[in-house]
Amino acid sequence: MPRLVMKFGGTSVATVDRIRNVARHVKREIDAGYDVAVVVSAMSGKTNELVGWVRDASSLYDAKEYDVVVASGEQVTSGLLALALQEMGVKARSWQGWQIPIMTSEGHGSARIAAIDGTGILQGFTQNKEVAVVSGFQGIHQPTQRITTLGRGGSDTSAVALAAAIQAERCDIYTDVDGVYTTDPRIVPKARRLDKVSYEEMLEMASLGAKVLQVRSVELAMMHRVPTYVRSSFDDPAEPKLGTLICDEEDIMEQQVVTGIAYSRDEAQITLRNVADKPGIAASIFVPLAEANINVDMIIQVVSDDTTTTDLTFTVPTADYDRACAVLNEHKAEIQFKDLQGATDVVKVSAIGVGMRSHAGVAAKAFKALADKGINIRAITTSEIKFSVLIDSAYTELAVRTLHSLYGLDQA
Amino acid sequence: MPRLVMKFGGTSVATVDRIRNVARHVKREIDAGYDVAVVVSAMSGKTNELVGWVRDASSLYDAKEYDVVVASGEQVTSGLLALALQEMGVKARSWQGWQIPIMTSEGHGSARIAAIDGTGILQGFTQNKEVAVVSGFQGIHQPTQRITTLGRGGSDTSAVALAAAIQAERCDIYTDVDGVYTTDPRIVPKARRLDKVSYEEMLEMASLGAKVLQVRSVELAMMHRVPTYVRSSFDDPAEPKLGTLICDEEDIMEQQVVTGIAYSRDEAQITLRNVADKPGIAASIFVPLAEANINVDMIIQVVSDDTTTTDLTFTVPTADYDRACAVLNEHKAEIQFKDLQGATDVVKVSAIGVGMRSHAGVAAKAFKALADKGINIRAITTSEIKFSVLIDSAYTELAVRTLHSLYGLDQA
Repeated sequence: MPRLVMKFGGTSVATVDRIRNVARHVKREIDAGYDVAVVVSAMSGKTNELVGWVRDASSLYDAKEYDVVVASGEQVTSGLLALALQEMGVKARSWQGWQIPIMTSEGHGSARIAAIDGTGILQGFTQNKEVAVVSGFQGIHQPTQRITTLGRGGSDTSAVALAAAIQAERCDIYTDVDGVYTTDPRIVPKARRLDKVSYEEMLEMASLGAKVLQVRSVELAMMHRVPTYVRSSFDDPAEPKLGTLICDEEDIMEQQVVTGIAYSRDEAQITLRNVADKPGIAASIFVPLAEANINVDMIIQVVSDDTTTTDLTFTVPTADYDRACAVLNEHKAEIQFKDLQGATDVVKVSAIGVGMRSHAGVAAKAFKALADKGINIRAITTSEIKFSVLIDSAYTELAVRTLHSLYGLDQA
Repeated sequence: MPRLVMKFGGTSVATVDRIRNVARHVKREIDAGYDVAVVVSAMSGKTNELVGWVRDASSLYDAKEYDVVVASGEQVTSGLLALALQEMGVKARSWQGWQIPIMTSEGHGSARIAAIDGTGILQGFTQNKEVAVVSGFQGIHQPTQRITTLGRGGSDTSAVALAAAIQAERCDIYTDVDGVYTTDPRIVPKARRLDKVSYEEMLEMASLGAKVLQVRSVELAMMHRVPTYVRSSFDDPAEPKLGTLICDEEDIMEQQVVTGIAYSRDEAQITLRNVADKPGIAASIFVPLAEANINVDMIIQVVSDDTTTTDLTFTVPTADYDRACAVLNEHKAEIQFKDLQGATDVVKVSAIGVGMRSHAGVAAKAFKALADKGINIRAITTSEIKFSVLIDSAYTELAVRTLHSLYGLDQA
């Protein structure tokens, strides 16, 4: 029988009533002839409660014990969903990460899945005709036999990795939205749901700020070519509506030049004024930042007004901004900059589309349109299938709407 | 170094603040030179919440999934206590039942501990100098690799079994009372805390209604001769007060004839009137009840008024009363009784003391004292170190107080 992985997030399992609704979705797919593995998150709010207790108990924050406490949330949901399925006459059993096992690295709190042994789950399908209800977000580091977690949103990753391990036909990610949109509908009411989007585009969109899926889960889907369907868990289980299929580029018939517009407020700008313009200067700045584990994103270099020095602008994640400034000030003597100027009220707006590969001048069109609206571009980065501009955050909505219209993404 | 097991129940770990207080108790014993394993229950109220969800999710009640959901409560506490200890500079790690492992029978929901492998915990003591924080109440059925629970109050049992497995010098049970009393202080304000009580007496007291310890844990303590100390977790950790040591009879210097008075409202009386007085009649009544898994406790048989039949009175647990009546009525034809009369407003009052072995007439004294107060005795059972009387529940307090004074247990 074909296999299906279905994943339900925290809001979809927030109460026992909603868990029953999830069970109805599962039963529909069972009735349609699938062997089903369901991956569940903790009941919405539970993880925050558990994390709050951990923080209260210890400022030292041993990630091993953090994982023990937090992984309990998914354990509860998996048992309850198995029970709700049984109540509907569907055979089901729960699986914790250590039981399957889902083997991970030792990186407690943000472990990476190394391998999944699907044998037990597949035996459950063939021998017992039972649904596997799998606790998402968690695994085991086998050498130490300790519980690990994958970090926030890790249940998406659990689901896609499991789909690859049991060679599922598809991985359905049920969420509180009905798919992937051309951009954030809260900003652009004319945003459209995409029927299909390629792995590559989805990866860029997730990396550049679209919150519907975790970056890591899209990477895994792309690597293992797991067709991944984003859809709503709040639909009537008897009449499910359409969502967005993340799939191979070749499986998408009509391809737009630009598929979506993303934005991220999680960027802070740092400008170093009057840096000595000599070889090796970039290394003296970016090596210490890399050693401090700070990701530098956009970089722009312009000649200063005095022509013997240069001004260097780059962005870092907002969360690392204070730390980045401290690192740079520590190394001021080597770098020899005159002044450090920072800005956290900036936003990165990006346009993504595999069509950019074959169309020239796509970005240039955007620069002109933004300039026409009086929006100043602080920095630019481009790659094969996307470009990003850094602008003042006050212009976020205007910029996103402008680009959304510019590339013909507005709903008819 | 000598080893100590400390056990804290749900009210002692109800909040992160209280968990910190528990950590202080543990640190005191570490500073005193012990290697410590701590067994914890779920935060008070959590187990009820989880059980409520299970009941809501399914009326079918798969005990395997019940165990998955409910065992999560102890997992949370174990992680939080490990963190709180670390915060105080005490090395600690959590252990779930499946990690140790605590191997149990397959009786999900009320599994019995078969064996405990203490190797990992002992290695933690010697190699890492770390406290083992153990989730109580849970274990693993190894052939299926499924999580099991020991049933309500099972954490006491976990603690005593662990103490036996790691050959601890003592098992300290921290609870919301400061020890074992001569009787329930809510009924008899003159009740006294016992400094010591023998395993045998404690087993009878727990079986006969004293709620301070689970029967199974006392059985284990007696079987493995684990000195078990019942004490308060709400004392100032810096100045702990005395509790009650459950130990060998030989270690108790001054032995009273009667050590304690217990009572249990968990009894229901059934009287079958005019049963044919012929051989095999007892079997026709008690075999069907045994097959329905109903424990019959006190049995009394008297000749009926018509002299050719007999009246048979016995007690069953209140929870099984309705079921027992149904079983008996089903078998009415074989048993040939005329009438079934039941009473649930009865109570069993018991006096316990190893001194009864060497003193005659202890029970007789009680029958007279109760009769003098106008209390009618419905049934009597006696054994080597205790006797019990079944009376109308309206007389509970009067009977307990009367016996407590009669045997010289009142506080000076």
